[in-house]
Amino acid sequence: MELVSVDAIEAAADRIAGVAVRTPLLPCPWADPDRPLWLKPENLQPIGAFKIRGAFNAIARLDDARRGRGVVAYSSGNHAQAVAYAAKVFGIEAWIVVPVDTPSVKVEATRAHGAEVILSAVGEREVVAAEVVQRTGATLIPPFDHVDVIAGQGTIGLEIVADLAADLVLVPVSGGGLISGVAVAIKAKSPSTQVWAVEPELAADTAASLAAGELTPWSVADRNRTIADGLRSQPSALTFAHQRSLVDGIVTVGEDEIRQAVTTIARNARLIAEPSGAVATAAYLFHGDELPRGKTVAVISGGNMDPELARELLV
Amino acid sequence: MELVSVDAIEAAADRIAGVAVRTPLLPCPWADPDRPLWLKPENLQPIGAFKIRGAFNAIARLDDARRGRGVVAYSSGNHAQAVAYAAKVFGIEAWIVVPVDTPSVKVEATRAHGAEVILSAVGEREVVAAEVVQRTGATLIPPFDHVDVIAGQGTIGLEIVADLAADLVLVPVSGGGLISGVAVAIKAKSPSTQVWAVEPELAADTAASLAAGELTPWSVADRNRTIADGLRSQPSALTFAHQRSLVDGIVTVGEDEIRQAVTTIARNARLIAEPSGAVATAAYLFHGDELPRGKTVAVISGGNMDPELARELLV
Repeated sequence: MELVSVDAIEAAADRIAGVAVRTPLLPCPWADPDRPLWLKPENLQPIGAFKIRGAFNAIARLDDARRGRGVVAYSSGNHAQAVAYAAKVFGIEAWIVVPVDTPSVKVEATRAHGAEVILSAVGEREVVAAEVVQRTGATLIPPFDHVDVIAGQGTIGLEIVADLAADLVLVPVSGGGLISGVAVAIKAKSPSTQVWAVEPELAADTAASLAAGELTPWSVADRNRTIADGLRSQPSALTFAHQRSLVDGIVTVGEDEIRQAVTTIARNARLIAEPSGAVATAAYLFHGDELPRGKTVAVISGGNMDPELARELLV
Repeated sequence: MELVSVDAIEAAADRIAGVAVRTPLLPCPWADPDRPLWLKPENLQPIGAFKIRGAFNAIARLDDARRGRGVVAYSSGNHAQAVAYAAKVFGIEAWIVVPVDTPSVKVEATRAHGAEVILSAVGEREVVAAEVVQRTGATLIPPFDHVDVIAGQGTIGLEIVADLAADLVLVPVSGGGLISGVAVAIKAKSPSTQVWAVEPELAADTAASLAAGELTPWSVADRNRTIADGLRSQPSALTFAHQRSLVDGIVTVGEDEIRQAVTTIARNARLIAEPSGAVATAAYLFHGDELPRGKTVAVISGGNMDPELARELLV
């Protein structure tokens, strides 16, 4: 299977400039001096997550006529807001299909970006999205299983390499779009830098798949147990091919470790990370013995959290 | 009185590169589209506040022999941590004089950067610091009343101008080192951009001084009423001269407005700002009618907050 090229990622970087924030690496004086740590704060993107990079790149790649007919996404999370926000930047329509049980705070956040929210029965999102595509002629923007989405997320890897000669980059993994793009960029520009995936123990289908050498699905019910609600998807053939080829290792983190990482990031780095966004830092904090040593980067993938949970974890 | 030059600020930018984080401007899609807002998140500096810029520049400007004898500061707040951190980067000794009633969390944060903390009687900080200077031959690094400190803080203005053609930049004011440097940089590079100071109503000595055309001191007791504990100082002759010459206006904000701004920044921008760091955003949120319209930047000066207060304001 053909992997995304670093050229595609460099082209994506040009496209997203001025829309996605060029996030800095934040040095952490509170970390272990023998394994100095930098955070890559993607929670500071305008929608609060890295997803804007891939969504914007994918929409930018459409030709004018096609883009003019609008875009569709099915997601209750950060990808929905990313597609809605990117569509607003382009001045096109966006239809976002969300299950009826989606918290209203997320529905409102998506509407606030000007998207039309379509409620679907639980488990019917993809079918409803396909109907919208057929009715409107709009283009479906998938959350991770698409070369343009992967290329957009990979711009994070280019930025890391430009800023630091890192020994290790820790990346949250779920559908795998983020780590696929980041790994392509880093291995192309700095082959000696190790790229490791981090996954919740309770949704460790990628770890199982990498161990087995083939996609090893877990049930939705199993994956939904983790507090890291952005990490409940599983890889596609495309993102799994990237990971088998490019990722150096994977570590899983426990639920308490994720919670503690959210608190540590708030107290010490003055950043609000959602649980999914905190898993890479959790791996650094609690699984150092399993990881290569040296200069370490932890990607904070997002910071959108229910107020209830924020009250519990932040302070 | 001779003001700091933009050349001095540009030289400072070269010195602090790689030590201070080159913070991005963060667009705020939740803000009023008629007055688009960007945040300059200086709470993301390694010590959690902009003070690292001025402290590092001032220490870098010492000749090797003098710097080798170490540095002294009297501060219970962000300047103490900035001097301690900068001294650690240079591998020199730092003595930080703090009043005995300083919260232990702040004392520990300063010690964690390797500084020697010297407790003094309340109101005796300056005397004790002078004794340390005499005994050790170390150099006192003042928090704002020094051209090299002002030049370091001014690098924030250079970065803002490089990133955005802003109509208005809102800057917290207390001793005035930050706004003095920022105003020099912005007026040199983008004369049409307005620079406004923001001050707590309960510590509005700068507003009173600008209105009177001369320094108008307020009592310590009065200034200490505000929750914004980093904004309880007052200008020196040097920083007041900069402000009279370069600052376009000043607005004061109430205590409830400051508290609400901390909460808004956490919820919408996923950043932890201390009350002092939130006043510019408070001015944007609650005093828009008093401000010039157009593209607005609010400087978030810091994010160090007592856990008690964080619990109350963040969520």
